[in-house]
Amino acid sequence: MKIPLLVPEFREFLAQNKTQELKEFCETSSPALVADFLSALEPNEAWAALQCVSPQVAAEIFTYLEPDLQKELVERLSRDQLARLFSDMSADDRVDLFKSLPEDRREMILPAMAQAEREDIRRLSSFPEGTAGSVMTSDYATLPADISAAEAINRLRREAPDRETIYYAYVVDEKRRLVGFVSLKDLILASPEAKIEKIMHRDVVSACVNDDQEDAARKIQKYDLIALPVTSPEGVLMGIITHDDALDIITQEQTEDMEKLMAITGSHETGIYLHMSVLEHFRNRVGWVVVLAILGLVSGYIVQRYEGLILQFGLLATFMPMLTDTGGNTGSQSATLVVRALALREVSTRDALKIVWKEFRVSLSLALVLALVAFGRVAFLARNCIPAGYSLWTVGLAISTALGLQVVTATLLGALLPLAVASLGHDPAVVASPALTTIVDITGLFIYFATVKCFLWP
Amino acid sequence: MKIPLLVPEFREFLAQNKTQELKEFCETSSPALVADFLSALEPNEAWAALQCVSPQVAAEIFTYLEPDLQKELVERLSRDQLARLFSDMSADDRVDLFKSLPEDRREMILPAMAQAEREDIRRLSSFPEGTAGSVMTSDYATLPADISAAEAINRLRREAPDRETIYYAYVVDEKRRLVGFVSLKDLILASPEAKIEKIMHRDVVSACVNDDQEDAARKIQKYDLIALPVTSPEGVLMGIITHDDALDIITQEQTEDMEKLMAITGSHETGIYLHMSVLEHFRNRVGWVVVLAILGLVSGYIVQRYEGLILQFGLLATFMPMLTDTGGNTGSQSATLVVRALALREVSTRDALKIVWKEFRVSLSLALVLALVAFGRVAFLARNCIPAGYSLWTVGLAISTALGLQVVTATLLGALLPLAVASLGHDPAVVASPALTTIVDITGLFIYFATVKCFLWP
Repeated sequence: MKIPLLVPEFREFLAQNKTQELKEFCETSSPALVADFLSALEPNEAWAALQCVSPQVAAEIFTYLEPDLQKELVERLSRDQLARLFSDMSADDRVDLFKSLPEDRREMILPAMAQAEREDIRRLSSFPEGTAGSVMTSDYATLPADISAAEAINRLRREAPDRETIYYAYVVDEKRRLVGFVSLKDLILASPEAKIEKIMHRDVVSACVNDDQEDAARKIQKYDLIALPVTSPEGVLMGIITHDDALDIITQEQTEDMEKLMAITGSHETGIYLHMSVLEHFRNRVGWVVVLAILGLVSGYIVQRYEGLILQFGLLATFMPMLTDTGGNTGSQSATLVVRALALREVSTRDALKIVWKEFRVSLSLALVLALVAFGRVAFLARNCIPAGYSLWTVGLAISTALGLQVVTATLLGALLPLAVASLGHDPAVVASPALTTIVDITGLFIYFATVKCFLWP
Repeated sequence: MKIPLLVPEFREFLAQNKTQELKEFCETSSPALVADFLSALEPNEAWAALQCVSPQVAAEIFTYLEPDLQKELVERLSRDQLARLFSDMSADDRVDLFKSLPEDRREMILPAMAQAEREDIRRLSSFPEGTAGSVMTSDYATLPADISAAEAINRLRREAPDRETIYYAYVVDEKRRLVGFVSLKDLILASPEAKIEKIMHRDVVSACVNDDQEDAARKIQKYDLIALPVTSPEGVLMGIITHDDALDIITQEQTEDMEKLMAITGSHETGIYLHMSVLEHFRNRVGWVVVLAILGLVSGYIVQRYEGLILQFGLLATFMPMLTDTGGNTGSQSATLVVRALALREVSTRDALKIVWKEFRVSLSLALVLALVAFGRVAFLARNCIPAGYSLWTVGLAISTALGLQVVTATLLGALLPLAVASLGHDPAVVASPALTTIVDITGLFIYFATVKCFLWP
């Protein structure tokens, strides 16, 4: 990738008011690339540069700017400048920016916009966050079924500047119900006189406005689409989601899954780690950590109950960290695999039996290996700590059996908890790995002391 | 989405040899949808259905079939059938299938293909896994700079059936060096006589064949591209990566990051949880778990060293699970955030100081809250367990201080370890959360006993 300009040169152009050069650079380069440049400048410089280019290009570059810079620029704009910017932005980016404005700015700007745009913003912002409706754009191309391929291409050419994509066009009936779609490739390959209804694909893959945004994105991924049409429950075309939005949705959902898995709450937006304040980071992390620390006292209570046993067998305390860690590790492994497979729609809760059976067999193999490790440790390293009256074998067997049982229980809990949460209609990633670790600590310590007691006081 | 056929009907068509109906259904529906249908059938039925449609469509549907079914079908094909299938597949899917074949099948099939295809396969399969070169396709459209927009459209129309996408065309010089690109939208909007060199964008965003595949995919995401050109280090156009591949790469990399974070090894392919054998699952999980269980014995050793202290203060064992868990949780949280921010190219190792400073402040706030929780627990629940000669205040203060120090250490280690691994050029996700948990167990127990000893035997 060639970068034909460097930031100092860019600044010089600005200082010397070389608007023609700036305009040419900004209008021939990729808007994301120009946005990278502007992000390195002061807000007033960035704004000066944006004013050199045509309003459409300025609006496009604006959508790629960092959220902080966007916010700062928006605060400097007059009502009319802001309205102009809004009317040049694509429908989905516009509504995102609109939703990020403070209430008073929102109310101020609406009357300054054309009625069609106002209604478009109201309509798009009415869908709840996380639905397909909330991420779709209304800048799509439609065609009637009864025109020819050549007419269709002419129409798309006329509409192209205002549409998010002209590579897919949707065919609707007189009630705007989605009846088919054609790609620009189909139109170019078809004979110019061929009617759209003859060329169009009728089995359109689509989403409903109320669908989960991740389901919609996964459809784009599965069917390799450039755009996915979104309809009302009655089949009326409402908008489209484009391939680039699908990438962003999937990245965001992945960040969310990973953060939830580590018991981090909050909005799970991407690209804001350094921008987020210490207070916000603290707020997102403190909740679960405190809950789990309090829950960890239950493990403490179990240890306390068996204090007599520990005082008699100092060796038991030695093996506690290994027991709790190993349970947490094996449980987190199975939980992660199940959460991921559920997120990728690879398994559903109907596969619960198959999953549990698989995890049971995996956990038995893991339990065997880990029990051997524990036995080895007792045999080789703890032979001098065995209390009088007990054989090394009995103590070793007791500790290995406890660890084996813990591994099986933890692995199965790790698989079952996300499945249970998913079957209740919640996001399985909330069975965070730290929560699971704390739960299997409790079950594990209980198993540990109960087993050891069983073996040593039969 | 309408599904115009059901599996039983599909079977009936096959049984009654209604090839015309089958052909029509398969050729007008989305190939991914047809592949879904075929996956529900027996392999011989699926193969019979594929033989009703044109070889090109059959090859396209084939690429969407589940890997298991693909493998089974490939085993049934004669050398010539397989060669035919290969020649109709797109270049990147073909090379993926080729690489999955056993050695003897690979050698058998190469001579049956045309020379150009043979060389294409050899070239594409020569790039190491994980590079941009290994995921690119050679089915892209190029244009010379000196033709007109109308001629360009005609050329793309002729080449369309063989190209992965005709929405982006790349402009190359006489040495096939990449000099620009035009979109089909640009061509349609331009006046028919305009020369390509006048319309083309010269600042082409591109990747090099040796780049990481994830970096290439992130470029597609950042610049909202339909395809990204991939060049040799000398700038010669070698292939393209399309938007749908970017989605798959990002999903796969994410699965890899998540699984690595939970100490799961293996190939990290997506969509194979249920297909993978128990043995493979076991192999992918056992390594780290055993290493960590052995490392967990170091924690055990520390506990053993302080056995005298525990025997004197039974209370200390009670707080051990809370101490180790909380350290693991806070450390995993910061590690996850840093690993994710590094994966999304949001921060780099150069931001290490900023990250550590942020995490330090967050950890101080967390430490304060958690120390209060621990103190509360001692004050309200353990007042009867304080050994004679010590005040509740001293014991409470000792335990809270230890927990606070543990939280700060664990959070900083969680941030620093991935940064250190990344700065050595390795994947930061290998600092798995279980490994981190085990490490902060060791540091935590050491801090715990040392602090308590300090307070209680000053």
